[in-house]
Amino acid sequence: MKIESIKISRYTLRYLDQRLLPEKEVWRRCETVDHGMRAISQLRVRGAPLIGVFAAYCIAVCARKKRGGGAVLVEFVRDAAARLNAARPTAVNLSWAVQRMRRAAENCAPRTSAEVKRILWAQARRIHDEDCRMCRQMGRYGAQLVKRGDRLLTHCNAGALATGGIGTALAVVYTAHRQKKRIHVYVDETRPLLQGARLTAWELFTSGVPCTLISDNMAAALMRQGKIDKIFVGADRIAANGDAANKIGTYSLAVLAAHHGIPFYVAAPSSTFDLSLARGELIPIEQRHPDEVRKVRGRQTIAPGKVPVENPAFDVTPAKYISALVTETGVIHTPNLRKITRWANTRKSR
Amino acid sequence: MKIESIKISRYTLRYLDQRLLPEKEVWRRCETVDHGMRAISQLRVRGAPLIGVFAAYCIAVCARKKRGGGAVLVEFVRDAAARLNAARPTAVNLSWAVQRMRRAAENCAPRTSAEVKRILWAQARRIHDEDCRMCRQMGRYGAQLVKRGDRLLTHCNAGALATGGIGTALAVVYTAHRQKKRIHVYVDETRPLLQGARLTAWELFTSGVPCTLISDNMAAALMRQGKIDKIFVGADRIAANGDAANKIGTYSLAVLAAHHGIPFYVAAPSSTFDLSLARGELIPIEQRHPDEVRKVRGRQTIAPGKVPVENPAFDVTPAKYISALVTETGVIHTPNLRKITRWANTRKSR
Repeated sequence: MKIESIKISRYTLRYLDQRLLPEKEVWRRCETVDHGMRAISQLRVRGAPLIGVFAAYCIAVCARKKRGGGAVLVEFVRDAAARLNAARPTAVNLSWAVQRMRRAAENCAPRTSAEVKRILWAQARRIHDEDCRMCRQMGRYGAQLVKRGDRLLTHCNAGALATGGIGTALAVVYTAHRQKKRIHVYVDETRPLLQGARLTAWELFTSGVPCTLISDNMAAALMRQGKIDKIFVGADRIAANGDAANKIGTYSLAVLAAHHGIPFYVAAPSSTFDLSLARGELIPIEQRHPDEVRKVRGRQTIAPGKVPVENPAFDVTPAKYISALVTETGVIHTPNLRKITRWANTRKSR
Repeated sequence: MKIESIKISRYTLRYLDQRLLPEKEVWRRCETVDHGMRAISQLRVRGAPLIGVFAAYCIAVCARKKRGGGAVLVEFVRDAAARLNAARPTAVNLSWAVQRMRRAAENCAPRTSAEVKRILWAQARRIHDEDCRMCRQMGRYGAQLVKRGDRLLTHCNAGALATGGIGTALAVVYTAHRQKKRIHVYVDETRPLLQGARLTAWELFTSGVPCTLISDNMAAALMRQGKIDKIFVGADRIAANGDAANKIGTYSLAVLAAHHGIPFYVAAPSSTFDLSLARGELIPIEQRHPDEVRKVRGRQTIAPGKVPVENPAFDVTPAKYISALVTETGVIHTPNLRKITRWANTRKSR
């Protein structure tokens, strides 16, 4: 079964409401910028690459319904880009994608309204197509790091549901599985929003990839027992020195991996790199509502109603804990500023 | 507010059903060995010291209703002790307590049935009183390790709800709080059964101890941010060399603490030590039902219904990660076989 996170048909954008997985597969149609913002901020659409692709389509779809000339449309795109960008702060793919949309609109002015609409749609398509291709390429490069029989661990969801394609970390898993490497994947449930249990376990189970679900706090015991050979995770933003922000709990795994001598890999496309930030501490970390911790899935209360809570959605893993970054153009081993700068320059000169 | 886990009045045993906390405070009466076994195996009564105290009372209460002479009663106690002991495998306090009850019955034979009943009740009382005293003593010794303003982290529930008294790790917290040391306690929610969120956060919040609830996977990020000064946890069984079994996720915290240079303390009374086991690997680890991970509190589904799961209830923290063991007779720094043997001999010779 092919897992899709969004469905695009002639000028419409539909998305799978990920808050309702795995019980219900509900597809919703996005027709306004407000709807798009809410879908992103409420994590109905989530995953760093996917929210970029989704926001781009959202702008293209909403622009098509807009009346007025080219200049009005460009102004609309600027406003929509700013609002969508504000929906979530940590993943840089979102601002990367909406900036591309804004520039596409600005650069084509002063054309006609129809031309601007066409260019916006084409740009969203291009962002999506690039994301699909980057996923496949990360899968190929990453799978070269996987040996036959490897038992992998992953955290959160960095799969088809997090991208426009087959995923980042899970692209590696799917590719290695297709290559019949007989892998087994341990899946961290990933509290508080349970993207591992609800999304990754669902993706892998549906796709026939052998997997075992665990609570986040079981990972260390499995490492000690020698049951984990490699760890693959995605990222939401990678600084110029290789420090990577990803779902809360990633840093924990990275330290535990280092302690147990287990390679720790981060798979992310170039759209996740933010070379304007020198170090990971500069990455803005989203703090979410305490009820996400006090309750499970907004319904089941698990703690006293007013107990204070910390709820950072992400943490930053310093580059020194990362064995390699898997990108669409290759693997950057023991990443640092020099290597990442060289990699970025090579990409630009292509 | 004084928090109690069991209520004893003239020959009746009532317990707070901990599965229903924090929403409901339901007290149930235990009148049969079967009921007692189920209460323990279903974690309605839990916490290593508490299940020992509870099982002892269960035997004493059920014996009182038994007809027949002294010999019949002793046979009943042997059978009840074996069945209660089988309810959960990891915490050694359970077998320690039921063995004491069995020996009390055996040693007083061939007295009359009334005498055996009286002796059983007195023995259960003694086990309970000793537990209360050991809690207070651990609190006093442990609080000496706590500085003014310390921010502590704890995992699972090692409080009044886990013992017959004020707790093991939380005895330290309560004592330091009473000493006005201005502590703050971070509470790991402790998946899958959420004893941290449901029980520890409830205990501390109810008792007015400043606390913050976090998901288990946030602890490492807090350590990196310098927000955790010390970690205090309880234990379910401690081997002769100091290796300690405790709730799953404890080992993870211990490794992370070592990595960040944070002292890691285990508070446990002598009834938690099993000197017959040379090393932690010999401690039996309870595997519980997969649905505890696939669902939250038996109701809210969070994963595909048939996804494979690992669900070890405990892990073992090697002694080398433990800065000190806090016992009722003092603190054993950097525990090892030699120190624990000496400590055990000193206790015996008293």
